[in-house]
Amino acid sequence: MARAPLTAGSNNPSSSDSSSSDFGYDLDLDRAVELIRKCGAKRIGLQAPEGLKRSMPAIAKQIAEETGAEVIISGDPCFGACDVDLMLCDEVDLMLHLGHAELGAGPDRVIFLEARMREDLREAVEKAAQILTASKVGVTTTIQHVHKLGQALDVLKMHGIVGLLGLAGERVKYPGQVLGCSYASARALDVEEYLFIGTVEFHPLGIALSTGKRVVIADPVTGEVSEIDTDPMLRRRFGAISRATLAKRFAILVSKKPGQKRMDLARRLMHLGEARGLEMFLVYLDNIEPDRLLNLGAEAAVSTACPRVALDDAAKYRIPILTPPEFEVLLGERRWEEYEFDEIE
Amino acid sequence: MARAPLTAGSNNPSSSDSSSSDFGYDLDLDRAVELIRKCGAKRIGLQAPEGLKRSMPAIAKQIAEETGAEVIISGDPCFGACDVDLMLCDEVDLMLHLGHAELGAGPDRVIFLEARMREDLREAVEKAAQILTASKVGVTTTIQHVHKLGQALDVLKMHGIVGLLGLAGERVKYPGQVLGCSYASARALDVEEYLFIGTVEFHPLGIALSTGKRVVIADPVTGEVSEIDTDPMLRRRFGAISRATLAKRFAILVSKKPGQKRMDLARRLMHLGEARGLEMFLVYLDNIEPDRLLNLGAEAAVSTACPRVALDDAAKYRIPILTPPEFEVLLGERRWEEYEFDEIE
Repeated sequence: MARAPLTAGSNNPSSSDSSSSDFGYDLDLDRAVELIRKCGAKRIGLQAPEGLKRSMPAIAKQIAEETGAEVIISGDPCFGACDVDLMLCDEVDLMLHLGHAELGAGPDRVIFLEARMREDLREAVEKAAQILTASKVGVTTTIQHVHKLGQALDVLKMHGIVGLLGLAGERVKYPGQVLGCSYASARALDVEEYLFIGTVEFHPLGIALSTGKRVVIADPVTGEVSEIDTDPMLRRRFGAISRATLAKRFAILVSKKPGQKRMDLARRLMHLGEARGLEMFLVYLDNIEPDRLLNLGAEAAVSTACPRVALDDAAKYRIPILTPPEFEVLLGERRWEEYEFDEIE
Repeated sequence: MARAPLTAGSNNPSSSDSSSSDFGYDLDLDRAVELIRKCGAKRIGLQAPEGLKRSMPAIAKQIAEETGAEVIISGDPCFGACDVDLMLCDEVDLMLHLGHAELGAGPDRVIFLEARMREDLREAVEKAAQILTASKVGVTTTIQHVHKLGQALDVLKMHGIVGLLGLAGERVKYPGQVLGCSYASARALDVEEYLFIGTVEFHPLGIALSTGKRVVIADPVTGEVSEIDTDPMLRRRFGAISRATLAKRFAILVSKKPGQKRMDLARRLMHLGEARGLEMFLVYLDNIEPDRLLNLGAEAAVSTACPRVALDDAAKYRIPILTPPEFEVLLGERRWEEYEFDEIE
């Protein structure tokens, strides 16, 4: 079966896609229905991140009614396009993955239907322009707002600021788009300052740490503008590395999620640790959650999965969890001054 | 690669398997090591239920040291032989699944290493014999104690009671063994009374409900003896069915676990519900946990996975979760008097 090309979601309020438009974002569900009809798929998988889960039963119903296909909903958590439900893929003819753009080529038989938020960016960017200091600024955002980046560039232009969008890399689809695990589009730019448009604090932290430059945040939902400060996070990470120096027994965590699985990196870290006399063991798992580690008796862990596990969720764990570059700092393979935000190639 | 025959674990306290004997049960790890050497496996998967997880790093280390193979530990929860980590199987040459006997043929390249508890059964069975009333009693237990059932039969014989072991079915390996999802070996017997030897209350409940006979429990760990009363559970289940009559929107849960996956049953239930005008949707997932259902907006669910999800864990969920036979009662397809404990064929 041919993979469907990704299409821009309709921003037309009179779109016939009345079902999805009830949920505060635009999905190009009509196109998915057309494709299902055309390829004759009889079983459809449906996967979405937590924020879109509530609309899945209604979307499943609409697809079933309009195509006659059976729809099976993925009930496991979903954190990104890195996390396509491969076991559900095996059960169905075609899979609809909502809310994310594909990572690179993406798996076969999976159609990524981006969920496009309707928020206007202009007010927040207008505010941000007041505190931007450079005449050339890198503009970044997440997938939900990427279709409106033109608005941001226009507003900046009116303030005499040139907004630049970094080219997408292997893992990222749109110019200006960043992922929790990839800031390649930001690093591609030769600028002294970045504007991040979005609601999450993790991504601008990643931009600041991976570029070393100032990052201004414009939140199009609240209209608030702020500036990222990496210092609190760096202090927490230094603390985690310090605590991990007391550990002798390390679990190296490897994710089963297709876009988070870094087995080769895990093996390299395992051998580095063993060479220093540490007791190391490899753990392969799907969702990394605190109770998964409780019974294994590790004194510290290194997560080679999504960088947010170590960096965003640290407080949930009873043992220090390090990113791969942090483990290298611990072992003396990397200096603290060379601290790197963990990214997935 | 040939599948290894399952062997009885050594009960000899002078066994050379010193590592596993530190954990209070006997594993035939020597045989696993021998097999790994013989077949030249370079990557070994290691999976165990929560109760044995703490010993996994030490077992992994022993296997790596004795065979030179790389060992990868499964970090996901494991609830039985129904729950073989197939994604880890794909990463390794040979998988060691600890603590359970295989279900039927079992997947390729998986060796099931039963964990045999050392508890003597005689004291508890001696006590139980005082309150058994039949002259012929069905004797049942779980995998951890099955190698000592001879002790139980001997004690019963001394009390003039004939102990019978039901033949194993498709899913169950040893005569007298029961699973949370299969009481075939108990039902195979023509007796008026059962003795269950073990520490879990779920299994004797299953025996009582699936046979309708009296069940006496002998716990070899505490030495306590008791009698199962199915009434509290039946009242709770009647309550769950009653609450579910208010629901209009049902999730039918299908497990990804190879020995729990009942997609055909799920489809049948889905169509039954739809024929009654209920809104039904299929959800495919790995571990069924309360937060998996929160965002889907179901008002009730039917679990076609392990029967313990609905029967043992009900209190953790905000919505009623029914077993397949309970959903049939709800729909009027089955009378309450025909209530059946859910089992997996």
